Amino acid sequence: MHVKAMEYMTANNELPCNVKFMIEGEEEVGSESLGWFLERNREKLANDVILISDTGMIAKDVPSITTGLRGLSYVEVEVTGPNRDLHSGLYGGAVANPINILCDMIAQLHDENNHITIPGFYDKVEDLSTEERAEMAKAPFSQEAYNKALDISQEHGEKGYTTNERNSIRPTLDVNGIWGGYTGEGAKTVIASKAFAKISMRLVPDQNWHEITELFQKHFESIAPPASVKVKVKPHHGGTAYVTPIDSLGYRAASAAYEDTFGKTPIPQRSGGSIPIVALFEKELNSKSILMGFGLDSDAIHSPNEHFGVWNYLKGIETIPHFYKHFTAMSK
Amino acid sequence: MHVKAMEYMTANNELPCNVKFMIEGEEEVGSESLGWFLERNREKLANDVILISDTGMIAKDVPSITTGLRGLSYVEVEVTGPNRDLHSGLYGGAVANPINILCDMIAQLHDENNHITIPGFYDKVEDLSTEERAEMAKAPFSQEAYNKALDISQEHGEKGYTTNERNSIRPTLDVNGIWGGYTGEGAKTVIASKAFAKISMRLVPDQNWHEITELFQKHFESIAPPASVKVKVKPHHGGTAYVTPIDSLGYRAASAAYEDTFGKTPIPQRSGGSIPIVALFEKELNSKSILMGFGLDSDAIHSPNEHFGVWNYLKGIETIPHFYKHFTAMSK
Repeated sequence: MHVKAMEYMTANNELPCNVKFMIEGEEEVGSESLGWFLERNREKLANDVILISDTGMIAKDVPSITTGLRGLSYVEVEVTGPNRDLHSGLYGGAVANPINILCDMIAQLHDENNHITIPGFYDKVEDLSTEERAEMAKAPFSQEAYNKALDISQEHGEKGYTTNERNSIRPTLDVNGIWGGYTGEGAKTVIASKAFAKISMRLVPDQNWHEITELFQKHFESIAPPASVKVKVKPHHGGTAYVTPIDSLGYRAASAAYEDTFGKTPIPQRSGGSIPIVALFEKELNSKSILMGFGLDSDAIHSPNEHFGVWNYLKGIETIPHFYKHFTAMSK
Repeated sequence: MHVKAMEYMTANNELPCNVKFMIEGEEEVGSESLGWFLERNREKLANDVILISDTGMIAKDVPSITTGLRGLSYVEVEVTGPNRDLHSGLYGGAVANPINILCDMIAQLHDENNHITIPGFYDKVEDLSTEERAEMAKAPFSQEAYNKALDISQEHGEKGYTTNERNSIRPTLDVNGIWGGYTGEGAKTVIASKAFAKISMRLVPDQNWHEITELFQKHFESIAPPASVKVKVKPHHGGTAYVTPIDSLGYRAASAAYEDTFGKTPIPQRSGGSIPIVALFEKELNSKSILMGFGLDSDAIHSPNEHFGVWNYLKGIETIPHFYKHFTAMSK
C-alpha cells in the first residue's frame, strides 16, 4: 500500500519529505541478517522516524496505534529416553517414556494459577500501576465477542489479569509444536526413543531474551529425571520487547493522520506480538519506530486462511500520506 | 521355519500327528476379522493344542516358554482449544493452548510413584504372592546389561516393583505418539487449534479391556478444563491378557522339546506383550496356546532395523518337530 500512495504523491508533487524503503523478509525467522546489514549501512539509512505497517487496529471504526510489542525467546527441546524405539508391550512400564516425561516437564512450567515456574522469569517484569491498568481497561473490548470468535466458552490465563493484560503486559510461555512416536493413521504400540517440542516465550519490557533463554534452559534441564532421559535445549531466535512514548513527534503525527481519515483520535495500544526489528532499529539507527498497522483480529494471522481486507488496504493507502504531511509540518 | 520343518518331516515320514496352519495378517491392528473367521470355521479348526511362534526367549543359552501375555487397550485422544490456529503473540497467555493442556492431562495420568491415576484401573489386578514374586525373580536378568543395551543410566517405573514385574505382571499406560502445532524445520509462533495423542494401556489378567477403555475415557474427559477445551477419546482396539498353566500337556511337551535341542529345561516367563488372538482362540476353539518363540530382546521389535537371527531361525526349525513328537507321545 505504501508504494501505491508514493506513486500518487510523487505524480502530484505532494511528497513533502524524503522516504527510504526497507523490505525485510526474515522477520519470522528472527531477522538474522538485518543487524549485520544495519551496521554496515548506518549512513544510508539515517532517518528522523521509522514507519512500520505490521500491526492491527482494534476495529474498523476504532483506530489504534501500537505503542508496545512483546519480546520473544523461542527454543526447541529434545528428550531422549532409550537409544531406540521400543515395543511398548515388552518394555512398557519398565523404561522412561520420553513423550510422557516431556509432557510432565511441560506441565511443570506453569503452576495452578498459570504463573510460569521458571526461577527468575518474572524478576525484571515491570508491575503496572493501578492507574495504568485502569487506563488500559478503557479500550473497547468484549470478552463475549472474543470467546465467540474463537468458539471457546471461557478465557484462560494467568490469575489476576484480564485478557487484554494477559496478551500485552504479561509474559507467556506456549508450546507451539510437539511431536514424537507414531503419528500416522491407526495404531502402533511403540515407545519412542525421542520426543520434541517447540516452545516460545513472549516477553515484556526489561526482560532480556538472552537471559530468559538461559533461565529456561537451566530450569528445563533441572526438572528432567536425569537418570532416565537426556534433555537438549536448542535456542532458536528471540527479540526484545519495545515500548514507545505517546508524546513523541512521530506518535503525534500518526495520531493526526488517523484523525484525518478515520475522524477519530486513535487509541494507544500495547500488542502481544513481537517485531524484533523495532528494537534493532533503535539500537543500530537510534530511531524510534511508529507502528501504523491496519490489520484486524479476524485476519487469522499465522492460521489457515490468513488474509488482509481490501477496505483495510485502501484505508492504509489513504492514511499514510497524511502521516508524511503532519510529520514534516511538525518537524519544521 | 515351521514349513521347512514340515517338509523334512513329511519327506522322512516322521510327522507323528496332523498339523493345521493358520496365517494371521491383522495382528498389529487388533485381528478384526479373526473372530468372525473362527466362529464360521470351528469344525475345520478343531485341534488338541495350538502352537504360536511370536515370542522371544531370555537368551540364546537360556531357553524360555512364554506363559503369560498382557492385554491391551489403545485409544486416540484429541484436544481442541480455539476454533483455528492463532498467532501466539496476539493470543498467547489469553487462551488455553491445547498442547499445553494435553501435556497437563497426560502428566496427571500417573502419580509421583508412577501409579496410574485412573479411578478403578487397578480394581481387578491380581496381586501376586510373595512366593510367586520370589519365583519370578529367579529368572536370569541383569539390570546393568538391560540399561546398557538401551543406553539409559537408570530404570524407571512403578514404585515397589522390579523391571521384570513392571513389564509383565503390572499394567501400564504409555503415550505411543503425540502431535500438534508446528513440527517442521525452524520456528513458527502459533497456538494450535488441536493437539493429539495415541495412548495405550497394557493390561494384566482379569482386567477387561472394554471396561478399562471406558474408565480411561471417563477419567480423561473429567480432567479436562471443560470451559477451555473440548476432548474426544476414540477407542482403537484392544485385547485380553492370557496366562497358561505350566502343568498342561502342551507345556510339558514344549519343555521336553527345548531340552532335546538346547540341553536345558526352559524357564516359564510372562511377557509384557500382547497377542490378542491367544484369548480369542481359547474363547472360540476352546484350545490353549503354547508360545514357543525364538526371538531375542536385541531383535529391536517395532523399532528401526527390526530383525530375526539366522541362528534363532534354524534353532526353531530344529526344536518344533520335537514338540510334535513329544506332544503325540504324551497324548497316547
